[in-house]
Amino acid sequence: MSKKIKAGIVGATGYTGVELLRLLAAHPDVEVAAVTSRSEAGTAVADYFPSLRGVYGLAFQTPDEAGLEQCDIVFFATPNGIAMKDAPRLIEQGVRVIDLSADFRIRDIPVWEHWYGMPHAAPGLVSQAVYGLSELNREAVAQARLVANPGCYPTCVSLPLVPLLRQGRLKPGMPLIADCKSGVSGAGRKGNVGSLLCEAGDNFKAYGIAGHRHLPEIRQTIAGLQDGIAEGFVFTPHLAPMIRGMHATVYLHLSDGICPETVLRDYYRDSPFVDILPAGSTPETRSVRGANLCRISIQQAAQSDVWVVLSVIDNLVKGAAGQAVQNMNIMFGLEETHGLGGIPLLP
Amino acid sequence: MSKKIKAGIVGATGYTGVELLRLLAAHPDVEVAAVTSRSEAGTAVADYFPSLRGVYGLAFQTPDEAGLEQCDIVFFATPNGIAMKDAPRLIEQGVRVIDLSADFRIRDIPVWEHWYGMPHAAPGLVSQAVYGLSELNREAVAQARLVANPGCYPTCVSLPLVPLLRQGRLKPGMPLIADCKSGVSGAGRKGNVGSLLCEAGDNFKAYGIAGHRHLPEIRQTIAGLQDGIAEGFVFTPHLAPMIRGMHATVYLHLSDGICPETVLRDYYRDSPFVDILPAGSTPETRSVRGANLCRISIQQAAQSDVWVVLSVIDNLVKGAAGQAVQNMNIMFGLEETHGLGGIPLLP
Amino acid sequence: MSKKIKAGIVGATGYTGVELLRLLAAHPDVEVAAVTSRSEAGTAVADYFPSLRGVYGLAFQTPDEAGLEQCDIVFFATPNGIAMKDAPRLIEQGVRVIDLSADFRIRDIPVWEHWYGMPHAAPGLVSQAVYGLSELNREAVAQARLVANPGCYPTCVSLPLVPLLRQGRLKPGMPLIADCKSGVSGAGRKGNVGSLLCEAGDNFKAYGIAGHRHLPEIRQTIAGLQDGIAEGFVFTPHLAPMIRGMHATVYLHLSDGICPETVLRDYYRDSPFVDILPAGSTPETRSVRGANLCRISIQQAAQSDVWVVLSVIDNLVKGAAGQAVQNMNIMFGLEETHGLGGIPLLP
Amino acid sequence: MSKKIKAGIVGATGYTGVELLRLLAAHPDVEVAAVTSRSEAGTAVADYFPSLRGVYGLAFQTPDEAGLEQCDIVFFATPNGIAMKDAPRLIEQGVRVIDLSADFRIRDIPVWEHWYGMPHAAPGLVSQAVYGLSELNREAVAQARLVANPGCYPTCVSLPLVPLLRQGRLKPGMPLIADCKSGVSGAGRKGNVGSLLCEAGDNFKAYGIAGHRHLPEIRQTIAGLQDGIAEGFVFTPHLAPMIRGMHATVYLHLSDGICPETVLRDYYRDSPFVDILPAGSTPETRSVRGANLCRISIQQAAQSDVWVVLSVIDNLVKGAAGQAVQNMNIMFGLEETHGLGGIPLLP
Repeated sequence: MSKKIKAGIVGATGYTGVELLRLLAAHPDVEVAAVTSRSEAGTAVADYFPSLRGVYGLAFQTPDEAGLEQCDIVFFATPNGIAMKDAPRLIEQGVRVIDLSADFRIRDIPVWEHWYGMPHAAPGLVSQAVYGLSELNREAVAQARLVANPGCYPTCVSLPLVPLLRQGRLKPGMPLIADCKSGVSGAGRKGNVGSLLCEAGDNFKAYGIAGHRHLPEIRQTIAGLQDGIAEGFVFTPHLAPMIRGMHATVYLHLSDGICPETVLRDYYRDSPFVDILPAGSTPETRSVRGANLCRISIQQAAQSDVWVVLSVIDNLVKGAAGQAVQNMNIMFGLEETHGLGGIPLLP
Repeated sequence: MSKKIKAGIVGATGYTGVELLRLLAAHPDVEVAAVTSRSEAGTAVADYFPSLRGVYGLAFQTPDEAGLEQCDIVFFATPNGIAMKDAPRLIEQGVRVIDLSADFRIRDIPVWEHWYGMPHAAPGLVSQAVYGLSELNREAVAQARLVANPGCYPTCVSLPLVPLLRQGRLKPGMPLIADCKSGVSGAGRKGNVGSLLCEAGDNFKAYGIAGHRHLPEIRQTIAGLQDGIAEGFVFTPHLAPMIRGMHATVYLHLSDGICPETVLRDYYRDSPFVDILPAGSTPETRSVRGANLCRISIQQAAQSDVWVVLSVIDNLVKGAAGQAVQNMNIMFGLEETHGLGGIPLLP
Repeated sequence: MSKKIKAGIVGATGYTGVELLRLLAAHPDVEVAAVTSRSEAGTAVADYFPSLRGVYGLAFQTPDEAGLEQCDIVFFATPNGIAMKDAPRLIEQGVRVIDLSADFRIRDIPVWEHWYGMPHAAPGLVSQAVYGLSELNREAVAQARLVANPGCYPTCVSLPLVPLLRQGRLKPGMPLIADCKSGVSGAGRKGNVGSLLCEAGDNFKAYGIAGHRHLPEIRQTIAGLQDGIAEGFVFTPHLAPMIRGMHATVYLHLSDGICPETVLRDYYRDSPFVDILPAGSTPETRSVRGANLCRISIQQAAQSDVWVVLSVIDNLVKGAAGQAVQNMNIMFGLEETHGLGGIPLLP
Repeated sequence: MSKKIKAGIVGATGYTGVELLRLLAAHPDVEVAAVTSRSEAGTAVADYFPSLRGVYGLAFQTPDEAGLEQCDIVFFATPNGIAMKDAPRLIEQGVRVIDLSADFRIRDIPVWEHWYGMPHAAPGLVSQAVYGLSELNREAVAQARLVANPGCYPTCVSLPLVPLLRQGRLKPGMPLIADCKSGVSGAGRKGNVGSLLCEAGDNFKAYGIAGHRHLPEIRQTIAGLQDGIAEGFVFTPHLAPMIRGMHATVYLHLSDGICPETVLRDYYRDSPFVDILPAGSTPETRSVRGANLCRISIQQAAQSDVWVVLSVIDNLVKGAAGQAVQNMNIMFGLEETHGLGGIPLLP
């Protein structure tokens, strides 16, 4: 490319923000032109995130002064409820937008308003947004002006299910259960007591039992691919005492004697970020630490007809910032892997 | 009691061993008279475990010189395959035995030999052994000469299921799934690479997908209580990056409209170590850290007819050494809680 | 004792609060009669701290309604600045007070005001307060109406130094350096970003380089025992990625050829909570986890005339709540170890 | 470059091995041609290290069959005692060697043999080896056939000291103390009990008090730069409960009124991997996680004339594999930063 893509990041003081900054700094065709934060306006990015000393010369700016409308693309790494207010103006001005929050993920406005507890500020824009599960919606993403980047749990759970659902292979009437475990960074860089090292460390617990916001998001994806399955979907998130990483253990019933591993392998043949492991493998979250990868295995439970899927991602990369950059690559006609070749950090 | 119970511990250099030592030191009616280890014979217990300095004057002895036959009770905290060779002689001499290994847990000898990969050395003794899930088998434990102390996963999974299975409340033909997460201490105090801080830390993974030894143990308990359920039982263990703690997330279907929380509450009314939480609660493993407790909640999954049980124990206490001491209390006619009143360590 | 000591805890929602609750519940001669928290008034203690379910029936009350004046002793587990306002009234009414905050630790009022950044509300009471480093001030504590419970760093650093300083053994003009490492619970149960698992986990750093509030507290202890040493005292606190535990590595110069290990052993002969290890030992923080112990070794650095002290405590026990209970025992004429026999939790 | 550098790695199953594999895979001018392991010969690298699936097609080979003599450079990531036997033959055949073990670090053979407890197999080669502290010995490294890559502690401690020692700024007769803290990966990927998550996790301790092998290595560097300082050098390593990261806290006395920060800044002006922070900063180990960086601050201790240096590296990168690649770049006339631009992973 002759000219670099000018990117802006709104709300870059959180974990998805710093991860975007890390990934975009390593991207050969992107220049981060503006980084906003109301609370940290004036602070140098390199002072705020000690890992970025020597990498960025930029300082945080208020959204008003940042000149976001001159960017080619703007990422919203904001809490829910911000992008739906601020993105429409940018889109009108021709800026492409990738929203890492949940504002444009759910097509059914009343469902969104129920789960997120606020009125939607831009309901008309929702139908134009493309749900950015890259491997499912590549063509639509390429054309999109607005991408709703998926949640971390929905990415980790949906990727192994999509190929099976597309072919209608799940058995209706039987439960589809996703037992998911997330590192604490999924809760964000906020000073809430439950995310303290002394509360979340050396501890394990479920949460969101009464209903987690990623439940309707996953159901929407399921319902769009096979009928009669979304109703039986059960989702239990758990908090694991680690920084990064997400593990989904999905229990499902197949309707016939197909080999699901083959179905997955075929579907993801040309998807460099989805790695189907041999049956019997047990993918580890650290095997994708820091990388834009999803590793998946599927096998039958011992002495049972239940199938067990194991799926791991780094919640901040393929579950957030990495998938966002992948979507950006698709939107700008670049190789999907461009600038995303980082190798997982192990140990 | 006028006289203290003389206790011996065989193989006390592992994590269940040091936990037995900790608990028995705090027990007002027990005197630890002998502690054996072939590899550490001659080493003072207090030098080997720095936490026990000032608590024990004993040194490890070889099993031969330790005088175990003069004990009132001997605990085997040994790898599988030792107790079945050494316990019979002690039992003949009138010593009561609690085996924390798996040697006497499975009644079906071929099944045991299949899963443990060795011939059983004392098959005739298996039928005399009482499976020491204390809350299920109190009366039999009280009379037992030999108690097979349950595995950690079987304790964590079975305690919430027992009351429902006893009443035949689970729905046949539907899956019963236990998605379990264990701290690393469950793998023992052996220098295996997979348990290193740099391998297991900041990481999450499933293991034993092809079949874990606790699967037949749990199935045996299920099959003894309700027909037609054990066959559909699925068990997936996971390794969580923490020292102690075990969390079972169990997915089940009920056959009718009963309130399962009430069933559990009724069954455990007089069981001081089982704590039924209000529906909607999410028990944390740290809420039982170091204590002989199992905390359980049961609720319906959001917008689903699947029931979700959350059950937590400290794998080294209620999942091993604590339940062993509880069984000892029952065997010797003491209050079940005697010497086991330690409060969980939080944070 | 015929009658239990009635104890109150002010500000019991933090980590020293929950640790006091754990320790006092296990104390045979104490009844916790009142637990206050302005923010959590009305909440059951057992709902707030899941580890205490089944242990306490009490609910938090506001300080006004709690009837603290009817207690025999009141512990302040409050942020700095509260006890100096609220303790005087209680003391006047004959209640004995142990303040776990810093309000009464520094005798020099301007020094206190400089480091704590506020005017002292009860300067007249400071001189009556006894500094509750139990092993140093046993006799005075026994008579005290008001005990200033020491900070965690001062306890960990001072215990090994006291015997040497008392005999004037440190070499004037040479540096005395305490390089200290603390678990994150020392920062309290507040939602500050720096204590998040994702910030403090898998990380190590110094802090308070420009001056930490425990510096003048340690200097005061040093200056009270030997002249000419406090001026050369250097203190560097570090944050280690663990929940509990504190490790001091102290570098010092001795003025003559004495055996410092013997000096320590002699001084602590009758102190059950201070354990002098053989030279060459390296005490671990987990060897005191959950217990009211300080373990110390002292040895010469390899090929050097510098002496190295290693000292470990559990910052929440001997460094806070445990020492407070120890002081209470002394104040009420009980055995110093009464109710404090908990064995460290390892692993 | 028209042709890629052919690299071999001997003993690539440990942590420095996998880190070399990660870094070299990202290096545009290197092709890893051979990876050896006696125990894992025949195993695919990508099967052994799950993080490298899709990155390497190679399998481990025995050293004999690997064709190392056809490489341009061979890295030894072996235990001590291997390279001194196997490197000489390769060097004779014109292969350049970087030894990440300790075999060629100490010039004084009897000293080496004392600390490493074995006779040296290639004493004649020691004097030809260049000590690969890149920033100190750039010119010599460029010409070297054999580079002795420094230990992790020596790198972390020496980098801040070198500029001051070179100018003779340290005060003779006063102690120079390095209190160091390392993540557990420094102990290697071996199944030793002390490195288990359940032993090293949630724990902190010193070790090697009687003398650590990195002590003579650091003393050698000191002695080569300023007289009269090495004798007073004290070194205490500690084990911190984290995977990667090393923190040195160095206490020193300066002989005059110079500004040491300026001395460091001047010396490292053209060293892209050494970052001098403003005085008062407290570098965190995570700020260099996964990156070839050393971040340093220096300031006076509060109310003292002792100076405190804080220095952090990733022990596996700047402390091992990263510095090795940096040295390789220098040896082959590449930009020092070539292929080493990875940004630290935070959180």
